Amino acid sequence: MTEGLEEKHIHFFKQLLKGRVQTGTDIDSKYASDHTEDFVFYPAAVLKPETTEEVSAIMKYCYENELIVTPSGARTGLSGGALANYGGVLLSLERMNKIIQIDEKNHQVITEPGVVTEELQNAVKAVGLFYPPDPASKGSCFIGGNIAENSGGPKAVKYGVTKDWVLNLEVVLPNGDVLWTGANVIKNATGYNLTQLVIGSEGTLAVVTKIVLRLIPHPTHTLLLLVPFRSGVEACEAVGKIFMSGIIPSGLEYMDRDAILFTAPYVDDAPKLLKDDHDAHLIIELDGFNPDVLMQECEKIMELVAQFDIDEVLFAETDAQKESLWRLRRKIGECVKTHSIYKEEDTVVPRNELPQLLKKVKELEKKYGFKSVCYGHAGDGNLHVNIIKDNLDDDTWNNQLPHAIRELFTEVVRLGGTISGEHGIGLVQTPYMDLAFNEVGLNLMRTIKQAFDPKNLLNPGKILPIKTR
Amino acid sequence: MTEGLEEKHIHFFKQLLKGRVQTGTDIDSKYASDHTEDFVFYPAAVLKPETTEEVSAIMKYCYENELIVTPSGARTGLSGGALANYGGVLLSLERMNKIIQIDEKNHQVITEPGVVTEELQNAVKAVGLFYPPDPASKGSCFIGGNIAENSGGPKAVKYGVTKDWVLNLEVVLPNGDVLWTGANVIKNATGYNLTQLVIGSEGTLAVVTKIVLRLIPHPTHTLLLLVPFRSGVEACEAVGKIFMSGIIPSGLEYMDRDAILFTAPYVDDAPKLLKDDHDAHLIIELDGFNPDVLMQECEKIMELVAQFDIDEVLFAETDAQKESLWRLRRKIGECVKTHSIYKEEDTVVPRNELPQLLKKVKELEKKYGFKSVCYGHAGDGNLHVNIIKDNLDDDTWNNQLPHAIRELFTEVVRLGGTISGEHGIGLVQTPYMDLAFNEVGLNLMRTIKQAFDPKNLLNPGKILPIKTR
Repeated sequence: MTEGLEEKHIHFFKQLLKGRVQTGTDIDSKYASDHTEDFVFYPAAVLKPETTEEVSAIMKYCYENELIVTPSGARTGLSGGALANYGGVLLSLERMNKIIQIDEKNHQVITEPGVVTEELQNAVKAVGLFYPPDPASKGSCFIGGNIAENSGGPKAVKYGVTKDWVLNLEVVLPNGDVLWTGANVIKNATGYNLTQLVIGSEGTLAVVTKIVLRLIPHPTHTLLLLVPFRSGVEACEAVGKIFMSGIIPSGLEYMDRDAILFTAPYVDDAPKLLKDDHDAHLIIELDGFNPDVLMQECEKIMELVAQFDIDEVLFAETDAQKESLWRLRRKIGECVKTHSIYKEEDTVVPRNELPQLLKKVKELEKKYGFKSVCYGHAGDGNLHVNIIKDNLDDDTWNNQLPHAIRELFTEVVRLGGTISGEHGIGLVQTPYMDLAFNEVGLNLMRTIKQAFDPKNLLNPGKILPIKTR
Repeated sequence: MTEGLEEKHIHFFKQLLKGRVQTGTDIDSKYASDHTEDFVFYPAAVLKPETTEEVSAIMKYCYENELIVTPSGARTGLSGGALANYGGVLLSLERMNKIIQIDEKNHQVITEPGVVTEELQNAVKAVGLFYPPDPASKGSCFIGGNIAENSGGPKAVKYGVTKDWVLNLEVVLPNGDVLWTGANVIKNATGYNLTQLVIGSEGTLAVVTKIVLRLIPHPTHTLLLLVPFRSGVEACEAVGKIFMSGIIPSGLEYMDRDAILFTAPYVDDAPKLLKDDHDAHLIIELDGFNPDVLMQECEKIMELVAQFDIDEVLFAETDAQKESLWRLRRKIGECVKTHSIYKEEDTVVPRNELPQLLKKVKELEKKYGFKSVCYGHAGDGNLHVNIIKDNLDDDTWNNQLPHAIRELFTEVVRLGGTISGEHGIGLVQTPYMDLAFNEVGLNLMRTIKQAFDPKNLLNPGKILPIKTR
């Protein structure tokens, strides 16, 4: 373990990076945290390389000197994947923030990892192209972090998650070696899929230094509806009905009553529509190139939701109305965090099992006496369950809650789902990995980790629980 | 190495599998070959398990007794991945041929690996659902083999390849251990992506015993066009134009003159439209739910292709006409093989680099004096280059051709592509893997192979070239 760094190491890094080094008390506090709960872990040094060669030199040096390295993007993660909880070196990719090439003819973009996701989306949109994955933090997160965590977002229901858009990665291995994992093509049957193995590996296998993404033409039209339901379970049931009709919305979001209550005060122009008998809302977005087709789909959806006990449907007519509705949705996590200490569980089940999952949450609330805010990507079966401390006593919070979470995840797995849909395992969900994989699976992952990182220096202790026997 | 099998091993297998064992001269000759060139390799035994438990027992026994195992599906592969070139046990998954469950509500299907791909497609279509990947061999190949090779097919251009439809796999490791690689969900950020690592690993890492696929509603309408071009390079250029317009066809196939010449005589009702000045054809398919939208897209495409030097466009009006056109396309590989000894190269480049690739093929034809038939998935940049022996002397065929292939692949990689788009590396492309990956990448794959298969007993010598130093 590396608590402080010896002077010779600091000297090496300062020589290499020409000042782009912070150590000891000079370290900016932002590098000690991400967006996960209230964790604070200071690294011994923060390094800010600007090139693949610098990353490689850092990794090689750390490998030879057995220094722990934690890669870090914008630290908007929700599972603690970028926390330097063993100290050592925090490798911040923030200076590798250039979009290298937008290849309009081949519908591809080559980028460095430190580009903010929304900036990347805007840059390709400027030439008519579309990079769909849009995590709630898209205005501040990095594309490299999205790859580390295999991030999702509302559009995943139609367009898939980050992994579905990555063609090729330049990565640096723990020993400093550099390789491209694939090729810049949409079909590839050449060797093991190293690209997909690195995606979602939360910076434990390699450091991503360049990214090739595929793009598609940007849809020209969207329609956005907000549907108030008198029963959350019925809202979930409506989701199944919509998909059975053959329509694939570009967004299908669930927000329970409390999610809106917590969030609306923080969004200036939030629609003030929550009534006493509204238990949950669905946000439904359609996108495409043909407004007539979208209107037909919209009418079909109106017929379907009208079969449930709903209040009046809101159509977002202007771009500003659409954006304000999406802003409300994106801010929920942040607002719940402002309100209280909380834990966020990123449950995911087959879409049609969502009503069952919601029932289980309500049952556990009663059994353990906690309160929760539920919202998320209903179209994907991906429900964020935010468990709120509020007035819960510390003993219940610290000692009983892990049992409740274990019960929740047990049900999630029983329904065919798993314990993280888009936030990753990171630091905080490792105790539950035994529910998602049997011991054979966990050991296989350990041998893969060892194949990449035989000295266990790159982001150790993330994803895989420490083996106790 | 296992040349014959000791009597005790045969006894064990016969006890376990109750007669589903072939050995020695009893082995049906079909188990010695796949569809790759003219290879013949007899295994020492053919085993036909019916359950995961039997596969596990076989693998455990072979692991303990150090017997080589080659998994085998329908043996329609084109790179030799299922050939028992080291003898040993051929593990045929043909008896594991049940569709376990079609989950209409969640748009998923759970199947065993030995189901014929087209039968699976038909079964889910019967309830309105769609499994898009459709390799040319779909009428005889197994879904398990599609996963082993990450198969593509014409619809990949709109819907992606096999890997894009697999949610979860039950696999048996070389030592007999069993695990599920993921969960039955479309979003998953839980641990390393073992599912994607197994897909395309050509039976070298694990044996797939159950498969969970995602499905979508089946499109209700298709339109199909055949466009004759006077220049093959212009046909490739037209492909780029179509995509730049924002239309994503559900098929965009290229066939050069010779591909049709070789194939038409074998397809009874093939359209007799090839004229002297036709250098190449594009097949363009559109699919969807709204015939008006398809017609609009079709008109747009007609405008685009009319900018090139084309002859009259053929519309396939009836289902029978559509099927006959697709049959013509699917039979090309088989017909070229009937005509002459040949080698098939499965090149893939970024879509817009296709004209450049085609020029290189023509240049190599002149330089080395061979003839080739080119066809394939132009919309994906995936061009099958069939090199025909015809009257070429043996010395040129055996000693010069590998240089020509190396030159071809070097250009493919220079253009951002790679050496196999959908056929895999198997046995025949291993000598060129150094073009697709640097030594760091190849060694990383070797360590991954070792993590799964420390004794190197599962399909050894496939994908990875033997290390010479």
